[in-house]
Amino acid sequence: LELGQQLNIISLSSVQVKNPHLDTMEEDILYHFSLGTKTHNLPEMFGDIKFVCVGGSANRMRAFAQFIHQELQLPGNSEEIRDICEGTDRYCMYKVGPVLSISHGMGVPSISIMLHELIKLLHHAHCRDVVLFRIGTSGGVGLAPGTVVISSKAVDHSFHPQFEQVVLGKVITRSTELDEGLANELLQYSTELQDLPTVIGNTMCTHDFYEGKQPLTPSPILIFN
Amino acid sequence: LELGQQLNIISLSSVQVKNPHLDTMEEDILYHFSLGTKTHNLPEMFGDIKFVCVGGSANRMRAFAQFIHQELQLPGNSEEIRDICEGTDRYCMYKVGPVLSISHGMGVPSISIMLHELIKLLHHAHCRDVVLFRIGTSGGVGLAPGTVVISSKAVDHSFHPQFEQVVLGKVITRSTELDEGLANELLQYSTELQDLPTVIGNTMCTHDFYEGKQPLTPSPILIFN
Repeated sequence: LELGQQLNIISLSSVQVKNPHLDTMEEDILYHFSLGTKTHNLPEMFGDIKFVCVGGSANRMRAFAQFIHQELQLPGNSEEIRDICEGTDRYCMYKVGPVLSISHGMGVPSISIMLHELIKLLHHAHCRDVVLFRIGTSGGVGLAPGTVVISSKAVDHSFHPQFEQVVLGKVITRSTELDEGLANELLQYSTELQDLPTVIGNTMCTHDFYEGKQPLTPSPILIFN
Repeated sequence: LELGQQLNIISLSSVQVKNPHLDTMEEDILYHFSLGTKTHNLPEMFGDIKFVCVGGSANRMRAFAQFIHQELQLPGNSEEIRDICEGTDRYCMYKVGPVLSISHGMGVPSISIMLHELIKLLHHAHCRDVVLFRIGTSGGVGLAPGTVVISSKAVDHSFHPQFEQVVLGKVITRSTELDEGLANELLQYSTELQDLPTVIGNTMCTHDFYEGKQPLTPSPILIFN
């Protein structure tokens, strides 16, 4: 078990919200972003978003946004990018051109609140063809330290490629297969970069940092952190 | 379903750490607090702690620490209390006299990382007779808005008073009964305060803010947030 770098990818080719009540609501408050359909012009603020990158730490996602700001050679000082969610301390959010960089805290419940409100945000903003990425660090089994892992799927504590969610007391099982075409595309890009060993692999996601994975080593297989 | 104020109580009458490896470790790094046994004098920093109060939001736990600072009439400016975990953006921690105020983010995995490192912190600091409180807001069923609820136990998504934890693939079930004597003591104190309707009740804890509890109302039964 060695420390690796892990890149998890979730892809949505177009944003589909199946909640029929959403379009009849007078106002939708995205509480944990401190945004809303009445208080903010979401299409104007977010309509051009094509890439959403999320990760656990607020500081890291700010640094990532600054990096993208420089890579895209956008006007203005990258040090001065503004936290769109500054009205709350739940998450941080930065927009740099067509890229949205959001922190999601630690653990599946925390990320699920963020994803809920993010997908509604993209719906209200009329975004199309958005790709979502999750970026973070983790331990790696059988990999040299520093390896970038592009996730093909997430497995649970028992190595099953599924996510169990309880909706009003009913257990619902969802597939955790990710976008194969996108994973291969990213792998192709990695060959164009020097000194960036990259593989496609599985990612284990548990609900407990310390006991779910491996309690006696300092670097457990860490996902959604 | 109406919005209430909820106070959840966890009590530890003395800190017991059952991990036999802990005392033979050369160094224990409490990573998500940015603290460690070699880099910090934990008994000196935390040895006098008697009360630990935790809640989701960093801003709220800072405001709570400032409130306690004023209530205890401690010397110094309560505006200038320092975040002990300023070396990380995972949690915030403030010490005001014998009270430790810590943010835990959203969801059980996030709080479990904090509790893991907190209990080891109290162990390393040789603390004794520590009482832990969890403070937060939630919806309330059959209660007037503003009611303070002292939790007697937590129930899961199916109303069972248990917490299922997966340790290395094995499901372990733990009781969620809380300290009855402490709950009654708090209820007694509440009668000495004016205009503070207080009851003892159960708290539902799910792993999903939106779908686990009640998807169509703006105020779900919100626990561990």
